[in-house]
Amino acid sequence: MNVLDRLRIVLIQTSHPGNIGASARAMKTMGLSDLRLVSPVRYPSAEATAMASGADDLLAGTPVYEDLDEALTGCRLVMGTSARQRSLRWPQLNPREAAAALIEAAAQRPVALLFGREQSGLSNEELDRCHSLVTIPANEAYSSLNLAAAVQVLSYELRMAALERQAPAVDTSADLAPEDQPASAEALEDFYAHLERALIHLDFLDPNNPRHLLRRLRRLYGRAVPTVSEVNILRGILTAAEKGPRR
Amino acid sequence: MNVLDRLRIVLIQTSHPGNIGASARAMKTMGLSDLRLVSPVRYPSAEATAMASGADDLLAGTPVYEDLDEALTGCRLVMGTSARQRSLRWPQLNPREAAAALIEAAAQRPVALLFGREQSGLSNEELDRCHSLVTIPANEAYSSLNLAAAVQVLSYELRMAALERQAPAVDTSADLAPEDQPASAEALEDFYAHLERALIHLDFLDPNNPRHLLRRLRRLYGRAVPTVSEVNILRGILTAAEKGPRR
Repeated sequence: MNVLDRLRIVLIQTSHPGNIGASARAMKTMGLSDLRLVSPVRYPSAEATAMASGADDLLAGTPVYEDLDEALTGCRLVMGTSARQRSLRWPQLNPREAAAALIEAAAQRPVALLFGREQSGLSNEELDRCHSLVTIPANEAYSSLNLAAAVQVLSYELRMAALERQAPAVDTSADLAPEDQPASAEALEDFYAHLERALIHLDFLDPNNPRHLLRRLRRLYGRAVPTVSEVNILRGILTAAEKGPRR
Repeated sequence: MNVLDRLRIVLIQTSHPGNIGASARAMKTMGLSDLRLVSPVRYPSAEATAMASGADDLLAGTPVYEDLDEALTGCRLVMGTSARQRSLRWPQLNPREAAAALIEAAAQRPVALLFGREQSGLSNEELDRCHSLVTIPANEAYSSLNLAAAVQVLSYELRMAALERQAPAVDTSADLAPEDQPASAEALEDFYAHLERALIHLDFLDPNNPRHLLRRLRRLYGRAVPTVSEVNILRGILTAAEKGPRR
């Protein structure tokens, strides 16, 4: 079972059905699947389905509850999202810290992340159910994230945390075709030697300080980490330059 | 000046005006302010203004261009967003890595992050303008983030990177001599045009597919982010190669 399947996203008394659909889409793009609604104001709704786009299957399986406790059955870690700093009663985390803690806990048991009403957020009674709060560090002058945008940011951080956790750090370059691998040190040295010959041939090196220019070019190409085929292209150009233009 | 003010978000040929408004809102919640549109399909639009919500001031100041190059004037680091892995070898970053690099570069000069069309993303010509690509590591089975949701995730990571950076951290590259600063986008384009002329002169381009080789060379040099003086050296070599070796 994927750890992301143990992450429950709970939307409480959402006013706009479009936000419910867009939240379902945001979740599905990040591999989350367990959406639950508590007392949505207008639902089901064609607007929700339209905004869900290709996540309509997720929406179709979404249960609706009248009571938050029912939606949280079986959950042992519950976090609430808050647009602003709350009183000191709750530990307050940023999305990255919250995602790390939720993914860690979800390895053993279901966890939930609560999103409150568009206008007024979570009530005090709902906050009482939360072990800690998450706040997206928004612009103080305009902190009004759209609900689905907040779900997107948190779902993204949850996916990033899940991916990091899995990571036996796969080396993606292992999958590259041989010609797209970084060129070997020997191939690079052969290229630099060729470059030097060509620049001498073109009378371009400063005879008083030939190494200076070559050193600069080494730094430039070195930063790019050229591939096997790129080194071949560059050497092809050098060979053409040595021959000179057709007369 | 806030480093986030140097971050340009460029939306190319957006179809749905609501996405433009929602993107403006997403940016403003994260403290970004420089939005630019290239050839939007329907704009201005009441729908865009409605979706911008309290970010209508940002939208009102948003310039519209017909040409991507105009929108990028003065930018020295350009990244493109891509929904999938591209075949050819651009450096491909996740949003966190990309944000770190963009914020680092924005400390000295404007940078841009490009978002393509809702359906088809960025064209190859647009990708050619990018030093690297950003991909949100989405669910392989459903990777279709809404455009404004993608803008929200990237803007969030940019804000997180900017907040992390605020720690005093002296900016060493601000002290670089002018010739050691990264070359401007215009200087790079001039170099690529010169490279093309020289390769034609040397009879090196494949007449059946001349753009393919140039695109590969752009990627190679783009990865290195050449400085002003490095571009001068490379152009000097091209001029010498055009003349040919002394006989």
